[in-house]
Amino acid sequence: MTSRRSTPPRERTGRRPGSSTTRADIVNAARVSFAELGYDRTSVRGIAAKAGVDPALVHRFFGSKDDVLVAALTIALTPDERIPQLMKGEPAELGERVVRYFLSVWDRSPTREVLIALLRSAATNEHAASLLREFFSHEVLGRIAAELGQEDAQLRATLVSSQLVGLAMVRYIVRIEPLASASPETLLAAFAPTVHRYLTAPLDLPEASC
Amino acid sequence: MTSRRSTPPRERTGRRPGSSTTRADIVNAARVSFAELGYDRTSVRGIAAKAGVDPALVHRFFGSKDDVLVAALTIALTPDERIPQLMKGEPAELGERVVRYFLSVWDRSPTREVLIALLRSAATNEHAASLLREFFSHEVLGRIAAELGQEDAQLRATLVSSQLVGLAMVRYIVRIEPLASASPETLLAAFAPTVHRYLTAPLDLPEASC
Repeated sequence: MTSRRSTPPRERTGRRPGSSTTRADIVNAARVSFAELGYDRTSVRGIAAKAGVDPALVHRFFGSKDDVLVAALTIALTPDERIPQLMKGEPAELGERVVRYFLSVWDRSPTREVLIALLRSAATNEHAASLLREFFSHEVLGRIAAELGQEDAQLRATLVSSQLVGLAMVRYIVRIEPLASASPETLLAAFAPTVHRYLTAPLDLPEASC
Repeated sequence: MTSRRSTPPRERTGRRPGSSTTRADIVNAARVSFAELGYDRTSVRGIAAKAGVDPALVHRFFGSKDDVLVAALTIALTPDERIPQLMKGEPAELGERVVRYFLSVWDRSPTREVLIALLRSAATNEHAASLLREFFSHEVLGRIAAELGQEDAQLRATLVSSQLVGLAMVRYIVRIEPLASASPETLLAAFAPTVHRYLTAPLDLPEASC
């Protein structure tokens, strides 16, 4: 890896500098760093070293450490493609599709570890909490709400996130049994109707809540 | 407070040493310490100093720091009294009673801050996660399961905990709007049917999951 550290950026002037391979190397290095070290101990310098590039290149391609994390999550979760797909299928199976998507994301390494690192940091670090809040509000919940198009869509999106964040905490982080070892089919049977109701059913809300 | 630090234990031989006031002082000091400092930075020595007693007395009354935390949570949540009450009322309103109980617990200071401290630590510290897992499994989920008396009662109890832990994370820790500012009535309308279903409805589980 040290032999690659002195590799200069391949382009210096274009709007999209560097080859896509270099960008992908940086994103992969970032995912491994966040997964192994957590949010707090990951640095742009460490990501650059792991990718075999100069830290300035990471800054130029992505910006700050937070920007690299958002890029890594966006590439892993592809919410811009997946959420419109999820929302547009057979209406009766919307809850099931959302839970399947959630489980597919958490089943993949190192995406699972990156999400665990982010959730852990968000629980203890206000800056990471704000990053998680922004990413999910804009990239995930905002897209769900936009597809729903209802007046209370933002609230519905946060209700879904409350169930899925809780599932992640209990299953992957605190690991309370029997939920921690339950099969995907059990999780679908339990959670798909909940998510479906939050997204589509009348909630009988007593008032505007936001 | 320093004038009280040399106060000796009032009894040395009984099975229930010390006045109940001293025990209550220690529990109150523990709650304030966990709330202000979090789990990692709270110590038996710090709790003792805040309560104006000798650290040995804290050890003698409760045991370790973890034991003091469990005692503080047990006194704050009284799961031994409240859970049988919750489970025994009007069956149709079970979900609503559970969500009301949850909200009442999180609305009280310093109980809310102690729970936030424990949840934060559980996200990052395996020992705290294990403490949270044990406390909730034995004191809360185990009691709910025992009252339900069904074959899949433990799974149902963890489904409930996944929704309530997620609500706590999104509302009190990561604070994603509009859920973070939603009224208790909105939360009841959204979550009571979910909790009710997890506790009572057929889950159509495809298999035994534990």
